[in-house]
Amino acid sequence: MASAQINPVVGDIAGNSRMVLECVAAASKAGADVLLLPEMALTGYPVEDLALRPAFARASIDAVSTIAKESASIDAAMLIVLGYLDQNPKPQNAVALIHGGVIHGKYVKRHLPNYGVFDEFRNYEPGDGTFIARFAGVDIGVAICEDIWQESGVVPELAARKPGLVLVPNASPYERFKDDRRLALVEKRARQFAAPLVYVNQVGGQDDLVFDGDSIVVDAKGNVCARAAQFESTLFVTDIEAVTETSSPDVVIDGAAKVQSAKAVPILAPRLSDEEEIWSALVLGLRDYVVKNGFRSVALGLSGGIDSALVATIAVDALGKGAVFGVSLPSKYSSQHSLDDARTLAGNLGIDYRVIEIEPVVQSFLAATTLTGIAEENVQARVRGSLLMGLSNQEGHLILATGNKSELAVGYSTLYGDAVGGFAPIKDIFKVDVWRLAKWRNAQARGAGAIEPIPVNSIEKEPSAELRPGQKDSDSLPDYRLLDQLLDIYVEKNGDAAEIIKAGFDQSLVDRVIAMVDKAEYKRRQYPPGTKVSAIAFGKDRRLPMTSRWKER
Amino acid sequence: MASAQINPVVGDIAGNSRMVLECVAAASKAGADVLLLPEMALTGYPVEDLALRPAFARASIDAVSTIAKESASIDAAMLIVLGYLDQNPKPQNAVALIHGGVIHGKYVKRHLPNYGVFDEFRNYEPGDGTFIARFAGVDIGVAICEDIWQESGVVPELAARKPGLVLVPNASPYERFKDDRRLALVEKRARQFAAPLVYVNQVGGQDDLVFDGDSIVVDAKGNVCARAAQFESTLFVTDIEAVTETSSPDVVIDGAAKVQSAKAVPILAPRLSDEEEIWSALVLGLRDYVVKNGFRSVALGLSGGIDSALVATIAVDALGKGAVFGVSLPSKYSSQHSLDDARTLAGNLGIDYRVIEIEPVVQSFLAATTLTGIAEENVQARVRGSLLMGLSNQEGHLILATGNKSELAVGYSTLYGDAVGGFAPIKDIFKVDVWRLAKWRNAQARGAGAIEPIPVNSIEKEPSAELRPGQKDSDSLPDYRLLDQLLDIYVEKNGDAAEIIKAGFDQSLVDRVIAMVDKAEYKRRQYPPGTKVSAIAFGKDRRLPMTSRWKER
Repeated sequence: MASAQINPVVGDIAGNSRMVLECVAAASKAGADVLLLPEMALTGYPVEDLALRPAFARASIDAVSTIAKESASIDAAMLIVLGYLDQNPKPQNAVALIHGGVIHGKYVKRHLPNYGVFDEFRNYEPGDGTFIARFAGVDIGVAICEDIWQESGVVPELAARKPGLVLVPNASPYERFKDDRRLALVEKRARQFAAPLVYVNQVGGQDDLVFDGDSIVVDAKGNVCARAAQFESTLFVTDIEAVTETSSPDVVIDGAAKVQSAKAVPILAPRLSDEEEIWSALVLGLRDYVVKNGFRSVALGLSGGIDSALVATIAVDALGKGAVFGVSLPSKYSSQHSLDDARTLAGNLGIDYRVIEIEPVVQSFLAATTLTGIAEENVQARVRGSLLMGLSNQEGHLILATGNKSELAVGYSTLYGDAVGGFAPIKDIFKVDVWRLAKWRNAQARGAGAIEPIPVNSIEKEPSAELRPGQKDSDSLPDYRLLDQLLDIYVEKNGDAAEIIKAGFDQSLVDRVIAMVDKAEYKRRQYPPGTKVSAIAFGKDRRLPMTSRWKER
Repeated sequence: MASAQINPVVGDIAGNSRMVLECVAAASKAGADVLLLPEMALTGYPVEDLALRPAFARASIDAVSTIAKESASIDAAMLIVLGYLDQNPKPQNAVALIHGGVIHGKYVKRHLPNYGVFDEFRNYEPGDGTFIARFAGVDIGVAICEDIWQESGVVPELAARKPGLVLVPNASPYERFKDDRRLALVEKRARQFAAPLVYVNQVGGQDDLVFDGDSIVVDAKGNVCARAAQFESTLFVTDIEAVTETSSPDVVIDGAAKVQSAKAVPILAPRLSDEEEIWSALVLGLRDYVVKNGFRSVALGLSGGIDSALVATIAVDALGKGAVFGVSLPSKYSSQHSLDDARTLAGNLGIDYRVIEIEPVVQSFLAATTLTGIAEENVQARVRGSLLMGLSNQEGHLILATGNKSELAVGYSTLYGDAVGGFAPIKDIFKVDVWRLAKWRNAQARGAGAIEPIPVNSIEKEPSAELRPGQKDSDSLPDYRLLDQLLDIYVEKNGDAAEIIKAGFDQSLVDRVIAMVDKAEYKRRQYPPGTKVSAIAFGKDRRLPMTSRWKER
């Protein structure tokens, strides 16, 4: 039994088809008789409204036929379970069961998630019933992703049919702590089915989502037989002990039971720590956005602060130091330590580094028209943004925005200033976690005997936007340790004001922060995408009106 | 029977409650015994994920109780049918039937639209069954918006119960030609119900949607008895002839039949022409975004071209000339006619007008770093954007982006340059329609003996971004007349390449334009909101991945 934890590209049906056939070849070579691929492996996931384009669905259906034919010449004996986009006549999230050059059956996803980042009810028509195919004498049930998260519907109905093995293709985006919930779910479902269960998830970044793989194989008692690495493409083979002829199947592909001696060495990839997991998510999310969109390099402003230092380090881990271009853009309010810290960071990372003084440009703006106070502060940020975009246009780099979730929540950023960029790697990371990840990454380097990338001073100094003399973030914001706890309840747990106050926060602080968050919705709408790692990220997860007079209190 | 075609503000439960009570008073004064308000009139619509915030739903439910009490002291005899957000325990899109200070029943929307701009399956739990209440002896059925658009479910089930009158509260966003479809639907449903039908829709702008009112009353044969003005708040009274005791109601509020002599003068508002309808949508959409978000003025760059001229004219119609600030931002590539046309426009409109030369600022950028070609062109656009945002910060104006749908489709704009702004009034208007609307608006002025606002030269000259010497849009884009026809099929009709070619377009042109549209998705994601007027606008209507290798051909 081979599980293909692969990284398809959305819309790249030709490329994904090649990837599928490579998996067939690898699985065949490893002696596997069944190959399970992720949900919609052929089209990538999520395809969003591409599902509604008939030409796209036709291309997907045609590619399944082509793969059926071509796979037979690689291994005509193998059962291939392939996720794709079907159309019947409405679009469907389906899997095809391919064997000997023929499509023997298909199963259509029944439970369509339409919450959080998911819009499946918008994009697909649900299937009905359950599906069991007999192969090598084993009655194999199929369920797709959300199908096994729901207590009613597929799970009890399929269990009642007594499958001998259950295959579950997934495209389940990463979020913190979800791996534990997935494992518990898979164990529980296997026990309900009283059958081994193979859970295969894709890996890779797709706009603001990242998929972590973490595929799991459990036996009929729910014991873990294999668990794949997080955030890595891998094809792994597991020996499955399955009882034959347990059900009355919808289709018999191959009725003869096979006895194979166990020969696969089960993989049990070591689990990542919480920090390493998040780091891997951010690295893969950025790498795939860059690579899948055809960029070769990224550029970003290095302020000497912790946010840009962290983003630069993520970028180097994602793309290599040769693909990261740091730019220092000092104004007259920039402190010497900021310049020093930026230069030190670039030196530690070994990346390209240049300095562009923005003062003459800022002065030319102030000469052109009268701008004072916040308007003047914002000019500095916008001059930096325009200079970075100029470098992007001139040299082809993707610009990275370096804002964190705390700033994004309260609107502590300049639209078209520090908010410019094609991707914002840490937009879902609270400031306290920015510090935590920076310390963790330095400790990793220290442990490996390498240079610690992030200057200690960038971690330890008080945060400042340095847009006016002596400015500190704490002039306009609560202490980040306090702010982030409050935001965690309001944004990530969707808690209301009463709950936050109950958690011990001062009423006036709650009112102030909530008002800031609500008012900044318009800024977030124009912010670049970035990798979701939390339960509720800004973006598709949290769809609030910009025009709203609701005040929670 | 009073119908309240009102303009509530999303989230403003206190303000909307006052508006509802004012409608009760006005309906009472006019002698009406029933008042129908729009779908979710109490919360505004759409509330998006506010529906998922328990405190918001609680506030909505509490406000219904308060309105029940307070309305009784205005008119205890009236039946008030009020749309609100319920929670049971999941959020529901509901209407309450209020009479004599008491809530006598509620109906929950069953058919939840989850396509186009709608996410109701995400935000609400559907109701079940149908609902009929007897009032003044008449068995009144209730259906909410989408309920009557679906052939199955509520329509046949309610028809089978033989209601004597059907009330349909709506929040149905404007789009071109939808008024005709609505009318035909309402006529058809009344005939199916064999009962008079009152269809009430809200008016007003909400982010990128605008609601056009256009409320309709038909008799049991589907004949129109009353039709309210488009895009205007109005409370109108209609005499309804309804048969009593036709059904077996779920609740009896008042069993005694009433005989009233006809006294209401039926309103039949004149229908707007296609141009006037779109114009009204753009004016109201902009006005409400500005006003509901607490802005008092708008500013925009006046290039002398047709797009900014049209946006400025819409802004004056929406907000008055005193609230519109025009800024000319000439570079060395700006032609004299551009400056003249911008000045003439501002003079025609009577708006504040200033000129800021951008050349020194552009030069300071070019001195700071090497930027050539497109990078240099974009600097000009970004200097303009930064200057406008500076004025916004300094003087408090909302900045208007002036891009049209054709440009937005093919990515013919500079991110953080001409794309800056809080609102983009004509983002859903193709270039050919920009010209058409400009001519129409001038003709309107001419007809009224007023100054034609838009300089003829701005309408007639060849479009140019003027970012390099002698540049014309046609250097990089197909002729707009051709381009817009192609985009109409690809974007607004979701047609595929084969259909476009079948419509007579050259294969290579189709490939080129489709590639431009697909590639520009990332730019559109960061573009400001603007009023939807077409079947498929960019934004919530068309959710496509940025990262995608799908190529339609």
